[in-house]
Amino acid sequence: MTEALTFEDFPVDEIVEYGGVAVSADEIIAFAREFDPQPFHLDHEAAQAATGGLFASGWHTAALLMRMNCDAFLMRGAVIDESGIEDVRWQRPVRPGDRLHVRRSTLASRPRDRHSGEVEFLYEVVNQDGLIAMTQRSLVVFERRREPGGDRAD
Amino acid sequence: MTEALTFEDFPVDEIVEYGGVAVSADEIIAFAREFDPQPFHLDHEAAQAATGGLFASGWHTAALLMRMNCDAFLMRGAVIDESGIEDVRWQRPVRPGDRLHVRRSTLASRPRDRHSGEVEFLYEVVNQDGLIAMTQRSLVVFERRREPGGDRAD
Repeated sequence: MTEALTFEDFPVDEIVEYGGVAVSADEIIAFAREFDPQPFHLDHEAAQAATGGLFASGWHTAALLMRMNCDAFLMRGAVIDESGIEDVRWQRPVRPGDRLHVRRSTLASRPRDRHSGEVEFLYEVVNQDGLIAMTQRSLVVFERRREPGGDRAD
Repeated sequence: MTEALTFEDFPVDEIVEYGGVAVSADEIIAFAREFDPQPFHLDHEAAQAATGGLFASGWHTAALLMRMNCDAFLMRGAVIDESGIEDVRWQRPVRPGDRLHVRRSTLASRPRDRHSGEVEFLYEVVNQDGLIAMTQRSLVVFERRREPGGDRAD
């Protein structure tokens, strides 16, 4: 098994891109039916009249971002806490047929104590045209790396 | 049809409670499989070892909050824009069998122009024991109410 990702694996100013998920009309409608049944997330005709066509619930886009983060690094991360999310902004509708990926920028990185450190990420969800659909900032606390060849003195 | 809810329907300092949704293990696992496949959201045994038992993805709780907001007022609201979400905090795990409702406080209310006004809500997702599972702040822009008996002069 690959070693878990720690605080040191997320240097400030690093920008990485990952993911790649296609969003279908059926998925948009299924999510909306359960969690966000506003007409423009459910029905092509109502959406056409109101907003130029069906688009995904913003919470669906947020959930897809979480999935891409899990697959790219969170599942391998020595995560202690995901303290919170700030500045969630939906900048552009996600339409059926869109293909989304993530651009993750590390805005800040602060040791918290000898065992852990906090990393501040900016996530941008980007569509197939390179346009930003959603952004958010996230604070994640990771374990710090143990020195090779021995336990720490504490 | 009831008249749409406008800016004037959300006075500052109002606190209302609504919703009431039970969360099952099957629903927690189904959401996690699609959007947040970390072991403590997917598997009872892994969760027991790591975190004292299976609990819902924070994004699942956020989606359930959206559903309760839709049912309680957003579907009837003359909403122009949901500008963004701030201060998303997960304070306590949501477990199978929990029953959630929402306490919504109106923190601020600002006319934007003659046609619209911005309302700042605090949402608290509260469980059956009265304990807060999640909070977030949301900015929603509503239409302002038209004077009865006539159009406005603009």
